[in-house]
Amino acid sequence: MSISTQAPSYIRAISPYQPGKPITELAREMGLPVERIVKLASNENPLGMSPRARAAVAQAIGGIERYPDQFELIAALAERLGLGYDQIVLGNGSNDVLDLTARAFLAPGRSAVFSRHAFAVYPLATQTVGAECIEVPARQFGHDLDAMAAAIRPDTRVVWIANPNNPTGTFLPYPELRAFLGRVPGDVVVVLDEAYNEYLPPTQRVDAVAWLKEFPNLVVTRTFSKIYGLAGLRVGFAAASPEVADLLNRVRQPFNVNNLALAAAHAALDDHLFLAESYELNRVGLEQIVAGLKRLGLEHIPSHGNFVTFRAGDAAGINKRLLQQGIIVRPIAGYGMPEHLRVTIGLERENARFLEALEKVL
Amino acid sequence: MSISTQAPSYIRAISPYQPGKPITELAREMGLPVERIVKLASNENPLGMSPRARAAVAQAIGGIERYPDQFELIAALAERLGLGYDQIVLGNGSNDVLDLTARAFLAPGRSAVFSRHAFAVYPLATQTVGAECIEVPARQFGHDLDAMAAAIRPDTRVVWIANPNNPTGTFLPYPELRAFLGRVPGDVVVVLDEAYNEYLPPTQRVDAVAWLKEFPNLVVTRTFSKIYGLAGLRVGFAAASPEVADLLNRVRQPFNVNNLALAAAHAALDDHLFLAESYELNRVGLEQIVAGLKRLGLEHIPSHGNFVTFRAGDAAGINKRLLQQGIIVRPIAGYGMPEHLRVTIGLERENARFLEALEKVL
Repeated sequence: MSISTQAPSYIRAISPYQPGKPITELAREMGLPVERIVKLASNENPLGMSPRARAAVAQAIGGIERYPDQFELIAALAERLGLGYDQIVLGNGSNDVLDLTARAFLAPGRSAVFSRHAFAVYPLATQTVGAECIEVPARQFGHDLDAMAAAIRPDTRVVWIANPNNPTGTFLPYPELRAFLGRVPGDVVVVLDEAYNEYLPPTQRVDAVAWLKEFPNLVVTRTFSKIYGLAGLRVGFAAASPEVADLLNRVRQPFNVNNLALAAAHAALDDHLFLAESYELNRVGLEQIVAGLKRLGLEHIPSHGNFVTFRAGDAAGINKRLLQQGIIVRPIAGYGMPEHLRVTIGLERENARFLEALEKVL
Repeated sequence: MSISTQAPSYIRAISPYQPGKPITELAREMGLPVERIVKLASNENPLGMSPRARAAVAQAIGGIERYPDQFELIAALAERLGLGYDQIVLGNGSNDVLDLTARAFLAPGRSAVFSRHAFAVYPLATQTVGAECIEVPARQFGHDLDAMAAAIRPDTRVVWIANPNNPTGTFLPYPELRAFLGRVPGDVVVVLDEAYNEYLPPTQRVDAVAWLKEFPNLVVTRTFSKIYGLAGLRVGFAAASPEVADLLNRVRQPFNVNNLALAAAHAALDDHLFLAESYELNRVGLEQIVAGLKRLGLEHIPSHGNFVTFRAGDAAGINKRLLQQGIIVRPIAGYGMPEHLRVTIGLERENARFLEALEKVL
């Protein structure tokens, strides 16, 4: 009998996360030169990382061999967000803090609620600790908060919400979210995943972290992998009540964020110029891609992130032909959307190459 | 009622890992300049990282913003170890792969066996998934394999073994380990944690990875945090049978190792000169510290790692007075050794400063 049969059944049932195809992988598979490949598949910042962050990494190389000390980044984030030092939990990407939340509050015999078409890590993190997934039907590809509130059972301990949502780009107005928090029982943790928060227009943004005072069951997660351009360095964080943060820290690996990532994130936090440039590039690039999709007669879901999801019909076939041209986008059949593709907003010329290639393969 | 009461009782019972005090933390606490502080507390390589690794990191800074691709490091390790690509699982430090093993095979209602005075992550990883810890009394501070084999119960799914062990430095000859593997039921995973393997004299080292052919329930873990000097970058790995590796990958976060860490580890792997220099520095430094301890009349546990543990009597008091002098060593009361301190082998001058300070405070 194979040793693998000894894993709990819920572990054996996991389908691993399918990441966007790395540029290097496509280069290996197709024999394409790396420079010829456009990757618009993983919602990375096409400007890369902030010059300040890059300089901080270069400077930090001198003294990175010691085990990391998270003090400075946590202190900077706490100050920025008006929270106590004991309210910030760093993660190896926000994937890590989502996972920590599942580990701290879920277990066999418990359940978690999330929306259909929401971020893939919610069902994965839930399943990995043996808890039950309660998937709630979406409303126009977005979260249906009324249905989610109704789906909460006595054994539910976590509700996962992405705002804006990935991979659909849908957005829940903050007043609706706040009303939802008021309706959720106080013994259920509500995770508000704001990975794409910084792409919202300033007029739409609300400081959900301030709600922690009223809702100790709220966990707000953010990431340095999107607008901050540090996807390759792995830093995210949770803002939570001190008691919840304490539990997340109990299950956290002590050295979960590396030294260079800490240095880069700290520097990136204050590079306002780079953030403004990235925001503007995304705003214009989103218009460019949406206009192109309309020209090609393709229906898209209005997006509030740095990507847009469109109905491609034979998405698998189109994706394959795009890959042959060196264009990497994201098939999302695993999100229950087998006819859609998700494209990240890139540089102007990358967006143009994508649209040209798409026109050709259609 | 507090939201934290909603976490499972085994999560609330966790005492987080107590890392060695970072240099920066002592500097903050005591107002000491960083240059005046000697840290011999976390078994880091006093030479830092390999020059090749540092150069690889500097070069990699140009293109690190994309989500990481683990292909090249895995391929290099598989080739080095004579394994298939599907037999290597990378971790954010070997802490991560230990944790993945616990998540894949342990759960409430299951148990794991480990030795008293063994590495702190074994009970932590076991407890965090709600499994029961079976701690086996040590024999002269080392693993008692007979007692460990006898402690295995029908619900045991993992046995944790560190060789050499941290924090005691004890070593199990490989023939005894192999015999142990032959006696353990095939449905129990045996984790052989070889974080300190590279500090063993070549004559004592045996390629335990080759045993995977015979024992598909074996998991060998290694790290780049010790002799390779990459503690601050977080890379470790597990070598396992394809079926076990597949399970570990199911619970692994897809981007668990960052881009710069991948580049550094790949470069470090082949820097044989640096490894030889680090090994020799450690051999001579261990003699230096052991001679110093003997001179001071202090009893030590013979060590096979890059640290040595000695009986200090009032360890907490001595540790406090060492800190006041800017010397960081590791109190190990949490390992059931309240009278001992663990000191990492440093540079010759660091070892000398430690011995001088120790003499003064005694």
